[in-house]
Amino acid sequence: MDIVKDLLAGSRLALSRAITAVENEYDHAVQIMQQIYPHTGNAYVIGITGPPGAGKSTLTDKLAREYRRRGKTVGIVAIDPTSPFSGGAILGDRIRMNELTLDEGVFIRSMGTRGSLGGLSHKTGEVVKLMDAAGKDIVIVETVGVGQSEVDVAKTADTTLVVLVPGLGDDIQAIKAGILEIGDIFAINKADREGVDRLNVELEMMLDLNQYKVDWRPPIKKVIASQNQGITELADTIDKHAAWSEETGERVVRRGKRVKDELIAMLNSQIGRYIINKMTVSGEFDQLIKQVEDREQDPYTAVDGILKAVLR
Amino acid sequence: MDIVKDLLAGSRLALSRAITAVENEYDHAVQIMQQIYPHTGNAYVIGITGPPGAGKSTLTDKLAREYRRRGKTVGIVAIDPTSPFSGGAILGDRIRMNELTLDEGVFIRSMGTRGSLGGLSHKTGEVVKLMDAAGKDIVIVETVGVGQSEVDVAKTADTTLVVLVPGLGDDIQAIKAGILEIGDIFAINKADREGVDRLNVELEMMLDLNQYKVDWRPPIKKVIASQNQGITELADTIDKHAAWSEETGERVVRRGKRVKDELIAMLNSQIGRYIINKMTVSGEFDQLIKQVEDREQDPYTAVDGILKAVLR
Repeated sequence: MDIVKDLLAGSRLALSRAITAVENEYDHAVQIMQQIYPHTGNAYVIGITGPPGAGKSTLTDKLAREYRRRGKTVGIVAIDPTSPFSGGAILGDRIRMNELTLDEGVFIRSMGTRGSLGGLSHKTGEVVKLMDAAGKDIVIVETVGVGQSEVDVAKTADTTLVVLVPGLGDDIQAIKAGILEIGDIFAINKADREGVDRLNVELEMMLDLNQYKVDWRPPIKKVIASQNQGITELADTIDKHAAWSEETGERVVRRGKRVKDELIAMLNSQIGRYIINKMTVSGEFDQLIKQVEDREQDPYTAVDGILKAVLR
Repeated sequence: MDIVKDLLAGSRLALSRAITAVENEYDHAVQIMQQIYPHTGNAYVIGITGPPGAGKSTLTDKLAREYRRRGKTVGIVAIDPTSPFSGGAILGDRIRMNELTLDEGVFIRSMGTRGSLGGLSHKTGEVVKLMDAAGKDIVIVETVGVGQSEVDVAKTADTTLVVLVPGLGDDIQAIKAGILEIGDIFAINKADREGVDRLNVELEMMLDLNQYKVDWRPPIKKVIASQNQGITELADTIDKHAAWSEETGERVVRRGKRVKDELIAMLNSQIGRYIINKMTVSGEFDQLIKQVEDREQDPYTAVDGILKAVLR
C-alpha cells in the first residue's frame, strides 16, 4: 500500500491519514496495521498521567522539546478522556503546542474517547505503533489519570511518569493511591507552590508501603514545567529507568504482557462483534433481548446458549 | 439456594455475601444471579456522577436520608475508580456514612475498580440487580465522572444526576463537556461559593447548544449538600424526571438498551475467556504471543486465525 510505503519513508501526511483510518475504523485500517507491524518495536514509549490540573500537557510539551534538543524525534498521543461524547479537546488546549507543531521532528495527535469501552486503549496502542513505524524515537502518551485510562497508559508505556501537584485537596489525593503502583517515576509539578514538601513526604511514605515495586524504587522529581525547571533532570531519570528496564529484562517482560493484552482485547472485540453481527442479521438478537427484558429468560442462561450455538 | 431465599426475604447478611460473591467471581455467583434475575426490575436507579471534589458523596448521603424520610428503602453503590490497583476507598471516605449504616432501610456498598477493563461496569450492574432483588426501592450508583465511568453510570441509571461545583478551574470545566449529554439533571453543589452564577450561565449555554436532549431539558438545581439545602427540591426533580420517563416511554427504551449492552458485554467477556482458557491449556496461546512478540506474525492475522479455528 502506498500509504504504508509513504509512512515508513517518514511522510507526515501518510502518518496522519493512517491514524485517521485507525481512529475511524476505515476498511483499510487493518491492512495498514498488518503491513506496518514488522516495522514496530523501536520507539521508546513514555506514558504521562496524573489528575486534572496537574499540568501534564505543559510537562509533555517541555519534555518533547528536551528530547528534540537531544536529537530525538518525538510523537505525542494526547488522550482526552474528559469528553467521551464530544470526542475531542473541546477547549483547544492543544493550541499551546503550536510552536512544537512547526517542528518537523515532532508529530502530535489528540484523541477523544467517544465512549467505546476498551476501544480507546486498543486505538492508543495502534496509534503508538503507527508513530513507531514512522520512525519516531520517542512516543509520549499523555492522559488524565483517573479511572481506567491510567491503567491503559501504563500498559502501553515502557516508562510511566505520574504527574502530581500540591494542594488539589483530599479527593484528588485519593487518586494517588490508584496511580501509585503504575508510576515508574513521579513528578511533582508546580513545585513553587505551597504544600510541595508535604506532598513529597506523603508520596515517600506511600512508596515505602508499596509492595509492588521492589527492584526499582520510583524516584520523585520536583519540576516547574511552565518555567522549564527540572525538565533535563526528569529526562535523565527517564533514561535511567530505561537503562534499568533493559538490563533487568523488565522491558522485555512488559512488552510480552502488552502483546498478550493486545491479543486478548482484539480477540474479545472481534469475536463478540462477529457473533452479534450474525445474530443481528437473523433477528435472533432482538428476540433474545426481548425475552431477557420480559424476564422470560435470564441473561446468563441466554449468553450460555449463544456460546454453545457458535463455538466448535 | 439459601442465600437467594434469604436475600429475597430481605436479609442484609445474604445481600452482603451475594455482593461479595459477585465481586470476587466466586463459582456460585452466576447461579445467584440467575436465580435473583426474575425478581429484578422494581428498583428506581439513580446515577450520580461529577468531577472529583464536587461533593458527590455528601449529596448521595443527603439524598438517601431524604428518600428514607419519604418511606423508601435505599441501596447505595459507591464506585471508587480512583484506586484501580488497591481496590477500594483507601482514605475511608465512606466512614461519614456511619449514621446511615445504622439505618436498617439503607444498604451501602463501596466497590473498587481493580483495573479489569469493562469489568466494573458489568459488576456494578450485578450489584444493582442484587439490591433491586433484595427489595430496595431506590438504588443510587455514585461514581467519579471522568473517563469511562460516567458513561457506565448513565447506562445503569434511570435518572442520571451530574454534580458540579463552582471554581474548579479550566481543566475540570472541560469535564462538563463530556457529562453534558448524560445528565438528566444537573446539581450545582456548594452553591454558597463564588462563581455559582457563572457556572449556571455556562451550563445553560451548553445545554442550549446540546442536540441530544430534545424532549427533556435537564434542569439545573442549586444545592448545598453539607447543609442539607435544596435536597428536597432535588428529590422532587428526580421524581419529575421519573414521571416523564414513564409517560414518554423513555424508561422502557433505556432499559431495553441496558439489557442489550449487558448481553453484549457478557458475551464478549465470556467468549474471550473461554477461548483463551482453551488455548492457554494447550500452550497455543504462549506460542502465539511469542510469534507476535518476535514479529514473525502480526496480531491481526493471529486473531483471525484463532477465530477461524474456534467458530462454527
